[in-house]
Amino acid sequence: MSQKVQEFNDYRAKMNDKILASNNKIIKRIFNLDTNAYAEGHLPVKTKELLGLVASAVLRCDDCIAYHLKTAYENGVTKEEMMETMSIATLVGGTIVIPHLRRAVAFWEALEDEA
Amino acid sequence: MSQKVQEFNDYRAKMNDKILASNNKIIKRIFNLDTNAYAEGHLPVKTKELLGLVASAVLRCDDCIAYHLKTAYENGVTKEEMMETMSIATLVGGTIVIPHLRRAVAFWEALEDEA
Amino acid sequence: MSQKVQEFNDYRAKMNDKILASNNKIIKRIFNLDTNAYAEGHLPVKTKELLGLVASAVLRCDDCIAYHLKTAYENGVTKEEMMETMSIATLVGGTIVIPHLRRAVAFWEALEDEA
Amino acid sequence: MSQKVQEFNDYRAKMNDKILASNNKIIKRIFNLDTNAYAEGHLPVKTKELLGLVASAVLRCDDCIAYHLKTAYENGVTKEEMMETMSIATLVGGTIVIPHLRRAVAFWEALEDEA
Amino acid sequence: MSQKVQEFNDYRAKMNDKILASNNKIIKRIFNLDTNAYAEGHLPVKTKELLGLVASAVLRCDDCIAYHLKTAYENGVTKEEMMETMSIATLVGGTIVIPHLRRAVAFWEALEDEA
Amino acid sequence: MSQKVQEFNDYRAKMNDKILASNNKIIKRIFNLDTNAYAEGHLPVKTKELLGLVASAVLRCDDCIAYHLKTAYENGVTKEEMMETMSIATLVGGTIVIPHLRRAVAFWEALEDEA
Repeated sequence: MSQKVQEFNDYRAKMNDKILASNNKIIKRIFNLDTNAYAEGHLPVKTKELLGLVASAVLRCDDCIAYHLKTAYENGVTKEEMMETMSIATLVGGTIVIPHLRRAVAFWEALEDEA
Repeated sequence: MSQKVQEFNDYRAKMNDKILASNNKIIKRIFNLDTNAYAEGHLPVKTKELLGLVASAVLRCDDCIAYHLKTAYENGVTKEEMMETMSIATLVGGTIVIPHLRRAVAFWEALEDEA
Repeated sequence: MSQKVQEFNDYRAKMNDKILASNNKIIKRIFNLDTNAYAEGHLPVKTKELLGLVASAVLRCDDCIAYHLKTAYENGVTKEEMMETMSIATLVGGTIVIPHLRRAVAFWEALEDEA
Repeated sequence: MSQKVQEFNDYRAKMNDKILASNNKIIKRIFNLDTNAYAEGHLPVKTKELLGLVASAVLRCDDCIAYHLKTAYENGVTKEEMMETMSIATLVGGTIVIPHLRRAVAFWEALEDEA
Repeated sequence: MSQKVQEFNDYRAKMNDKILASNNKIIKRIFNLDTNAYAEGHLPVKTKELLGLVASAVLRCDDCIAYHLKTAYENGVTKEEMMETMSIATLVGGTIVIPHLRRAVAFWEALEDEA
Repeated sequence: MSQKVQEFNDYRAKMNDKILASNNKIIKRIFNLDTNAYAEGHLPVKTKELLGLVASAVLRCDDCIAYHLKTAYENGVTKEEMMETMSIATLVGGTIVIPHLRRAVAFWEALEDEA
């Protein structure tokens, strides 16, 4: 696995464990919802992952973008589909999204390098 | 056409005309991009409209939500798909999205009333 | 009850019913969490309501502010405590919070008028 | 004075009085800073008003936009300069700024109608 | 003192000095207000620090979160109270707050390590 | 050139090349608009750069701030004018802008060190 992806996964997993260990019921349930919301429903998983990606991008949350890039990649989203999703994010959210687009493209490349 | 939808369309059209009449090149091109970005591409129109909807919802822009509800509705999005999209918006964007969800459900109802 | 407060309560209740009737599991659970999060815990209800108020104010969500003003008022928060909370919101969130502060003070007055 | 401008001024003045009457020191000082920040300094008043306008526009605060449109107008800003400022706001802040641009153009027209 | 806390304090102090040395009156007064706003008033210091924390968290400002975690810790806030505050932030502000929650929990741990 | 400025320029140029190579038409046009919007028009370049700076600052986009600091510096903006612009950003956008102000002052210093 590329170093960038590995480091992201490791920090995320380690801190999620600590957060859940703190035993706050509200936070635990939000984590639980976060898993359920992207499961197959009326919309397919792939579409939901793109919805999560565009929402993360316009809200400019790098870690959230990285997470949805990873799951989108694993669900067969192509680079062209990812870029089209990010183009809508950049149009709706403005040029302030561009620095996050730069990091998204770098992270996508790291995901491709693993394969 | 329901009054709510009619008023939304009329104000939008009237003010867009005035904005374009002011002849600012940057704004004209952004308006132009706004049309192109949601056209059929690597992703289908329906998916793009849902991407536009979720982006508008997490950024809490009522007029943008109404616009994408309308185009989503016209492209055959079902109420269940719309609600699933809005559920991701509410999870990612937080409970501050709920007042916009209320208005979105009211606008969707107005769209259904027209049919 | 003052008209302003009554209208707010009525629209909120009517639309919440419609949202819950749509039967989206994620949204239902978020509504449920929203009730639990402000219950007595390690922090008293009054403090939690002020936390909800300041979060709503810096995120500039008028309906959320109105809701937390109402529950704060019902839990014995004084006008001075409310204003101190809003002063922190205005400092942290900037002068863009001021229009929401104007509407918050008007809503608080409506709450006082009922008594 | 056009009705739209008059109503804006009246509500703003009435509520500002109530806010200042509540005697919260932090809020009073923020109001005071808000006056000083736009005074002639290293940058001329006109430039500062445009800075206030673009900041208000990307943060999507209609009342703040209206206020800075009014002061910009009173300081001799032309419609072309205002539109150029708003075009930067729309580019940087994205298409979610457009509904605010619509209302800004309508308010500017109300300011012109007074003259 | 733990390295993480030390580095945060040092960079903050060094840059604050440079900012204040630039002698901009508006910025100086905002810094001054920032000290006064969290002083004992109608609300106790501890509550005000939690208000500052939740506002910083929903606005997703890591440095602001770290600062209020530090002052909250010094004022006797327990881990449970901090987590309850952050749970309200995550509910109101959405799952985009979670990456900041991860870093907040890591910073809190650094504060505990010092003791 | 100072290391900080060099690294910023290099990463920005490298990733922009990769983004443009992906050949997404919407993104290409947004990049193109981003160049045109700051060109001499009814407002001078210097004013437009300050508008870009204040918009970037209130939206808290460090890379956007760095970019506009660089172009502002190259267009003869003085430190006093930059600080006045940032003071308006801090007032309008609130104390959450301060961490970005710290990094802006550090980046400005790096720009001065080059000269």
